[in-house]
Amino acid sequence: MNAAAPERIPIFGPPAESTAWVGPGILADADRYLVSPSGRFLLAAAPSAEPSAAILRRVLGARCVAEVAIDDAEASKSLASVEAIADAALAAGLRRDDAVVAVGGGVVTDLVGFTAAVLLRGVAWNAVPTTTAGMADAAIGGKTGVNHRLGKNLLGAFHPPTAVLVDPRALETLPDRDYRAGLVEAYKDAWIGDAALAARAGAALPGILARREAPLLDLLAGSVRVKAAIVAADPREGDRRRLLNFGHTLGHALEAAAGWGGLRHGEAVAWGIAAALEISRRRAGLPDADARAVRGVLAGLGPFPEPERDAAKLRGFLARDKKATARGLASILLPRLGAAVVDENVPSEEWLDAAAIMSLS
Amino acid sequence: MNAAAPERIPIFGPPAESTAWVGPGILADADRYLVSPSGRFLLAAAPSAEPSAAILRRVLGARCVAEVAIDDAEASKSLASVEAIADAALAAGLRRDDAVVAVGGGVVTDLVGFTAAVLLRGVAWNAVPTTTAGMADAAIGGKTGVNHRLGKNLLGAFHPPTAVLVDPRALETLPDRDYRAGLVEAYKDAWIGDAALAARAGAALPGILARREAPLLDLLAGSVRVKAAIVAADPREGDRRRLLNFGHTLGHALEAAAGWGGLRHGEAVAWGIAAALEISRRRAGLPDADARAVRGVLAGLGPFPEPERDAAKLRGFLARDKKATARGLASILLPRLGAAVVDENVPSEEWLDAAAIMSLS
Repeated sequence: MNAAAPERIPIFGPPAESTAWVGPGILADADRYLVSPSGRFLLAAAPSAEPSAAILRRVLGARCVAEVAIDDAEASKSLASVEAIADAALAAGLRRDDAVVAVGGGVVTDLVGFTAAVLLRGVAWNAVPTTTAGMADAAIGGKTGVNHRLGKNLLGAFHPPTAVLVDPRALETLPDRDYRAGLVEAYKDAWIGDAALAARAGAALPGILARREAPLLDLLAGSVRVKAAIVAADPREGDRRRLLNFGHTLGHALEAAAGWGGLRHGEAVAWGIAAALEISRRRAGLPDADARAVRGVLAGLGPFPEPERDAAKLRGFLARDKKATARGLASILLPRLGAAVVDENVPSEEWLDAAAIMSLS
Repeated sequence: MNAAAPERIPIFGPPAESTAWVGPGILADADRYLVSPSGRFLLAAAPSAEPSAAILRRVLGARCVAEVAIDDAEASKSLASVEAIADAALAAGLRRDDAVVAVGGGVVTDLVGFTAAVLLRGVAWNAVPTTTAGMADAAIGGKTGVNHRLGKNLLGAFHPPTAVLVDPRALETLPDRDYRAGLVEAYKDAWIGDAALAARAGAALPGILARREAPLLDLLAGSVRVKAAIVAADPREGDRRRLLNFGHTLGHALEAAAGWGGLRHGEAVAWGIAAALEISRRRAGLPDADARAVRGVLAGLGPFPEPERDAAKLRGFLARDKKATARGLASILLPRLGAAVVDENVPSEEWLDAAAIMSLS
């Protein structure tokens, strides 16, 4: 059964053309939305995303000229994987006017998108995220990259997918822990940029946890709209785009301190948001009711594993923040629901103090 | 002794800001021209470029916060080298607003420029080419990249250096074979885009071979001007930029067939130009006098090693041309000196036929 007309959400105009299509069942119509200058595609899919890959394989038929399997473990986000994907693509005769389709979670879209960015100095690609984290965050906005032993995403490129297909039915086989962790990013978009969406999706949390299509679609599409508006205004993360890092300044440090795989990215961000709520109350006048609303959703999405809280252990990871410049850390605070701000005057120590007392209940 | 005011040649305007500065002795004033948002630099130099690196080290002083040595062999253009440079840069605490300075030949500027393109999703860089090939070609125009086992520069990015410092005095220690091979690209720029320069530099060949500053400067600056005008009109190689590949369609195949290091890039291009002259006479009406003028300069720059001429051995390399699309090979022909054109209708076999009979004398 094919889908009703999806929602079309423009992310970037030319030259970095990027459009998200959001709708239940749209993978079955993928040939209408996926873009390739030559009409030929290389399918790069994670085994865990096989149900979605199978739909695309059927829809694309002979236009899919080659396939490469992508391991969706964080450890596969490496230059060695870029080389391996390039091997497969070039051996299959990929040309500059062909396009890649990445099918999977954030690891897959980050890695395959980056490979597309550097292959033959850049070929077009399309993202088919199959996780909540991918739909709300990784596949939207053009950031691609791999990890370096000193930190995540330290090597990368800005290379937006020409089309992003967000089909909530692709989530059907996603394990619950990943489903919930990824939703942290979707709610985060609402909290920083759309108070009405935050209220609707907050009230709809039970239905969303039960994976009911209507409220889930409302949250996912709303999240893409918020992120699209922010990244369109600031593609290269000079200013406004930093708002998307609400919860990430400390979150990245918590994630790194837990070791890769210890905390899901979204789980670490949830804790980072809890800390940001503390600092936002003190420094930005965040009303208690707003803080309670956010915390209530995070509690419902959890419980999440306990993070590292020891300042001595977190301090080094905080200092290594990729966004740090000569001016110091950029902290994202929330004066009220739906309107985040950047504050460059929050000392690292204040984040470490908040880590000691932050709570998700 | 510091330099007279150099010639300023704009290459790209914002956002891909890129400016070439051309003048004898300008390295001694490098602090006026090198650009870093933070004022801090990472110096990435080839040991063979040590005289130039020493000047920069002295001029930059404490603003040079770290150094990394780059092997300038073609084999070092690899993702493994990218990882190693990233290691050194990140270990030294490189931040997003710091900049890199690449000092060396085309291998160094291609590799370091590509690393800058992907490090922290892109940091600024400056190019200080110390070879004729780097000054006339590799450091100008924003193409960066590394090799893949299936071909040269198959992984790369468009990431122009903010500043390019072309100081002919940096060539003083360049071996004669490299000096002459690189000049093929400089003359090529004149032949495709500036008939007056081609005439002046053709007449001045003996002085240029003797490394006399005035005629060499005229050729290098003129070559940068031609290339800048072409790439500014077509940064991403959609159309006009392909003109720069005069001699390269067959040249790349000759270079690959000879094995890395068998023929210098410029030497292979010289043979490729010889073949292009044959096809240009037949298909584009190139006057005999123009063909003789080009061949005379190439003979003066040589003699160059004999290339592979066997069609059976060249055919596979020609088919793998990176610029090939579904439409086929893009051949660059020369109807007259100073005005090249793209022709998409030259069969590969015609290039292979020309390879059998091409001559540089």
